[in-house]
Amino acid sequence: MRALRLPDWKSEPELVEVDEPTPGPGQVVIRVGAAGACHSDLHLMHDFEAGTVPWNPPFTLGHENAGWVHALGAGVTGLEVGQPVAVYGPWGCGTCARCRVGVDTYCENPAGAPVPGGGGGLGLDGGMAEYLLVPSARHVVPLPDGMDPVQAAPLTDAGLTPYHAVRRSWAKLPPGSTALVIGVGGLGHVGVQILKATTAARVIAVDTRDEALALARECGADLTLRSESDPVAEIRAATPRDRGVDVVLDFVGVDATLRLGAASARTLGDLTVVGIGGGTLPVSFFSVPYELSIQTTYWGSRPELSEVLDLGVRGLVRPKTSTFGLDEAVDVYHRLREGKVAGRAVIVP
Amino acid sequence: MRALRLPDWKSEPELVEVDEPTPGPGQVVIRVGAAGACHSDLHLMHDFEAGTVPWNPPFTLGHENAGWVHALGAGVTGLEVGQPVAVYGPWGCGTCARCRVGVDTYCENPAGAPVPGGGGGLGLDGGMAEYLLVPSARHVVPLPDGMDPVQAAPLTDAGLTPYHAVRRSWAKLPPGSTALVIGVGGLGHVGVQILKATTAARVIAVDTRDEALALARECGADLTLRSESDPVAEIRAATPRDRGVDVVLDFVGVDATLRLGAASARTLGDLTVVGIGGGTLPVSFFSVPYELSIQTTYWGSRPELSEVLDLGVRGLVRPKTSTFGLDEAVDVYHRLREGKVAGRAVIVP
Amino acid sequence: MRALRLPDWKSEPELVEVDEPTPGPGQVVIRVGAAGACHSDLHLMHDFEAGTVPWNPPFTLGHENAGWVHALGAGVTGLEVGQPVAVYGPWGCGTCARCRVGVDTYCENPAGAPVPGGGGGLGLDGGMAEYLLVPSARHVVPLPDGMDPVQAAPLTDAGLTPYHAVRRSWAKLPPGSTALVIGVGGLGHVGVQILKATTAARVIAVDTRDEALALARECGADLTLRSESDPVAEIRAATPRDRGVDVVLDFVGVDATLRLGAASARTLGDLTVVGIGGGTLPVSFFSVPYELSIQTTYWGSRPELSEVLDLGVRGLVRPKTSTFGLDEAVDVYHRLREGKVAGRAVIVP
Amino acid sequence: MRALRLPDWKSEPELVEVDEPTPGPGQVVIRVGAAGACHSDLHLMHDFEAGTVPWNPPFTLGHENAGWVHALGAGVTGLEVGQPVAVYGPWGCGTCARCRVGVDTYCENPAGAPVPGGGGGLGLDGGMAEYLLVPSARHVVPLPDGMDPVQAAPLTDAGLTPYHAVRRSWAKLPPGSTALVIGVGGLGHVGVQILKATTAARVIAVDTRDEALALARECGADLTLRSESDPVAEIRAATPRDRGVDVVLDFVGVDATLRLGAASARTLGDLTVVGIGGGTLPVSFFSVPYELSIQTTYWGSRPELSEVLDLGVRGLVRPKTSTFGLDEAVDVYHRLREGKVAGRAVIVP
Repeated sequence: MRALRLPDWKSEPELVEVDEPTPGPGQVVIRVGAAGACHSDLHLMHDFEAGTVPWNPPFTLGHENAGWVHALGAGVTGLEVGQPVAVYGPWGCGTCARCRVGVDTYCENPAGAPVPGGGGGLGLDGGMAEYLLVPSARHVVPLPDGMDPVQAAPLTDAGLTPYHAVRRSWAKLPPGSTALVIGVGGLGHVGVQILKATTAARVIAVDTRDEALALARECGADLTLRSESDPVAEIRAATPRDRGVDVVLDFVGVDATLRLGAASARTLGDLTVVGIGGGTLPVSFFSVPYELSIQTTYWGSRPELSEVLDLGVRGLVRPKTSTFGLDEAVDVYHRLREGKVAGRAVIVP
Repeated sequence: MRALRLPDWKSEPELVEVDEPTPGPGQVVIRVGAAGACHSDLHLMHDFEAGTVPWNPPFTLGHENAGWVHALGAGVTGLEVGQPVAVYGPWGCGTCARCRVGVDTYCENPAGAPVPGGGGGLGLDGGMAEYLLVPSARHVVPLPDGMDPVQAAPLTDAGLTPYHAVRRSWAKLPPGSTALVIGVGGLGHVGVQILKATTAARVIAVDTRDEALALARECGADLTLRSESDPVAEIRAATPRDRGVDVVLDFVGVDATLRLGAASARTLGDLTVVGIGGGTLPVSFFSVPYELSIQTTYWGSRPELSEVLDLGVRGLVRPKTSTFGLDEAVDVYHRLREGKVAGRAVIVP
Repeated sequence: MRALRLPDWKSEPELVEVDEPTPGPGQVVIRVGAAGACHSDLHLMHDFEAGTVPWNPPFTLGHENAGWVHALGAGVTGLEVGQPVAVYGPWGCGTCARCRVGVDTYCENPAGAPVPGGGGGLGLDGGMAEYLLVPSARHVVPLPDGMDPVQAAPLTDAGLTPYHAVRRSWAKLPPGSTALVIGVGGLGHVGVQILKATTAARVIAVDTRDEALALARECGADLTLRSESDPVAEIRAATPRDRGVDVVLDFVGVDATLRLGAASARTLGDLTVVGIGGGTLPVSFFSVPYELSIQTTYWGSRPELSEVLDLGVRGLVRPKTSTFGLDEAVDVYHRLREGKVAGRAVIVP
Repeated sequence: MRALRLPDWKSEPELVEVDEPTPGPGQVVIRVGAAGACHSDLHLMHDFEAGTVPWNPPFTLGHENAGWVHALGAGVTGLEVGQPVAVYGPWGCGTCARCRVGVDTYCENPAGAPVPGGGGGLGLDGGMAEYLLVPSARHVVPLPDGMDPVQAAPLTDAGLTPYHAVRRSWAKLPPGSTALVIGVGGLGHVGVQILKATTAARVIAVDTRDEALALARECGADLTLRSESDPVAEIRAATPRDRGVDVVLDFVGVDATLRLGAASARTLGDLTVVGIGGGTLPVSFFSVPYELSIQTTYWGSRPELSEVLDLGVRGLVRPKTSTFGLDEAVDVYHRLREGKVAGRAVIVP
């Protein structure tokens, strides 16, 4: 079969012929229906080197995958060949306290995982191929009736990541509260949709680009602001008594956005950093509002993936996508690097 | 001033002239802008008798009130004369563990309350008058900018009661879950609106009347069913694997609806009884789904009232209302008894 | 190997020779170190008949099991032969929303489970044998360092069941609150220990037997009362303002204890029915305190089992036990029926 | 009456004669039974200057107060003259969203408070006098039966502050979890007691002083470590799979302790900074564990004060105290500065 493989660090991916996978006990092979091309793949190609992560090329790219069950390994129950499914991307050990409840993202036994801290397309062969070997049936999540793999694939990361970040803050987002979304890109615009679909909070979106703010409004944002105008005062003025926003979701993560988030937040709020922009926030007793909780989040959990798929099939979350064939994939990454892909690029093998 | 008073149990209210109230220390007098006429007032007039509740007529009716601050008693801070406000209706002792966090509904020191288990229009003079004496400034809740007392008054009960019932079950209503609303009347249709505004749950509504089901659909219900057809199988079929609904809100509360709710519910769900229909549900180990939580709710808390007002001013919750003058109030109750009032009747003195 | 099997409904168990099990893909064989003899086994022997549950004899008894990993099926990772382990007892489908987070107790796809609504010793071969076949590695939970299978086995049911019932109510048991334990038998006395170990709530215990009340005091109960004296007034008097207890755990579940629990409870509290005594509580709007949540619970979840084992190894939970050989097992059940076993009977093959 | 007043910034307190206070509407005068001398008072005397906080001397010191109700202002209900009470210290506006549920610490309308961001002994006259004027009856909390003001006073701050920090993390402290207490001083040793009383978590305590570690063990710490030995590896080794501690409570707050806390913490944990040591933690995506929540806390809420008092009257929380007369107060602060007071100094007027 054909597969888009990363041959080495600091190299371009290549479309090559490889053997079709066969499932061992407990494993599943998926016929790939769609594989998302993620910005983070560009980091894999250009920025990582030996030692950055505990795994190395070569491997097939693609960590946002959906398709149909193709072959079941011995002992697998609860799945049927031909069934449309999404693939949960972070593949942990399966037995630690985190993995046992579907939080493979924070697996506490990486030595017991197929690859430490990775998954398909991240150290192991991913979905930019005709078939994908999933090392445990538990990562295979049935699609809701009527959902297509092309629609599902981007939800497994570009949907799941903002969903997890929003969901953990629900209790702080009752009517009367405000959420601030910083950065309305591939994840941020989905974050706005999720906030509107699952809470009655007001949503303020901030970006440097007018078209991003237009997208935010289209997704339901109540107020949009250009970030270069130092919008802290405007953000606070949009909240009762200038108290600040209850929840900040920073999808950028550079120094300036972290500072903006902390300055805009309310006491007892959440400042959640999703974007890996390389910034640092100096936290001291009087530099941030009292009891503002500051944390990163990484991807999401398996139960949350089912919930995102439900939002997707009902049209409540709709990441923007463009589809391409597998033979266009190399070119897609070039265009992705140049910022020339509208919405999420999805490869359909 | 004029006031609509209940002179005795088992009697009709009368519009009479009474003295204007004067606020004592810590008290506030409200110029009434709107007072809702509630079905429960009919019970006060016709069904209650000495001993039913620990208070007695005469008193002015009206427990759903909003207006403007008219006079402040000594020591009151944080309010200004002329400010538009809603009045939180359940008036507890103010010092017990419940009242200290705004849950006067479940005051644990009724002997210390102005009247045990009551409030304005419920043992004490209510809002169907030109002015209303509120015995503690803490019951006076500022209206959001742009909200009118006529819009606010029904939210203090017809909005707050379903809001509390929905809000306590939020954690059981993630995407992929289903809520069942039984009875789409004055409270039930608001319950549907609140579910749609604050969660991404699917909403199924059941009623005996086609026009109620039409209203449910207008409020956003995803599926509506006639209750006399014994819809348990249809309800279960609308949930994954026939597992049942995650949350039941019974706004009727008769034997049949309680039974319907229990038979439709999922394990680990909630069955919340809001309607005081006089029914009884026999609960035994195998008669209800495992770990289904069954409870009544009564009205709501003061912090929740602020949240409902926010939903109201943004148009996310819109109880249907008809407005009348104070001199029409006696007649309004007659029409209410005959089921001839469209939506909530609001008296505007 | 020898195994204690139930040959048919309404029959006595027999110690017979059977084949040793062999693990298929994803399965594990445990060398049994201890198997608890549960009162519910007596119901299996004497009260059940064809149709009571969706499975039938013959099968080996024993649903409270611990031991050492003996053989691993193909594809099993994260376990080592010889490792001491406990066996999580409720064996669900493994793929539904409940099973995916370790709540096999409420499996929503019973047709996909090894046996619907059962497990080892409950429709499938259990642990009263030299070896036990566990149909999925996920049910095998490592023991904490220093814990012995004899100590672990009763924790998998007699520990886990009250633990789940207490844990779900933690948020209602802050300092100043009170828990009421009704029935201080095999599960109830462990419930008292768990309440004392995991909360700062006051604990009131009620039973009909003086020796049970002595056991409750030994386990840390703050107040013990004889139930036949109608102790509602005493229970309420032990709480501030007579408000009632925050959480009721009914380990008996007959009409009288359900009534006692409801009459003793506080508004917004929990009344959790653990004991399958056959009683019924008629629930209507004014028959129970406002917003008292009433629910059953059944066994517990897999993550909770790990937590119970931790309480056990630290001596914070210590079910009373007596140990016996496998050849004494038939006799143990006779003595169990006659109430002549001190504490939990544990069979050590 | 006599009062220990701070005459100016950067000055010593003086014991002077002042008028007895008289309560206005809604106010209460307390006959002081005990007033704690807090280390933070030394900062008031020596480090603050005009502009540091939005209030200025002169005022009477003492923000940890308990005593007996002496006089009630007009309109106050629910309190009786002579009743023993504690005084909740942070005095907010009383009407904002925070104050309405007893969280005056984070009052969002400081301009509406008696003094912005302060209270008795912090800008307004405090409890180091014979009588204390409390500006709203809501700050007066009845003592549990049998509790003495001398026992109660330190609980209002030295008890309430660590209690709030622990309580907010309960959900992350089930059996099997670990809490790390950094700094076993006046608040830290109470933190250890509260962790042991309200959870089944293991407690590790770190300090630079052997006698502090001895105190930690006396309070129930399971493991104590000297901080200068860089104990991160030992802390991690004391947790399963070296995963780190679930909750860090930093009662020091200097650079080194913040760094120690972040390096010792588990993914999804809490790092709560209570100590105002002036340190800064640089937070970036890969410098802290995934989804570790980092926040400060300040004092606690009014409902929490009632809970702390309950722990106190039952002996579950016992801050170490030494008592002195009002005429010794000036000297007590001298000795406090020199580190010569054993436990909390409590002034008994």
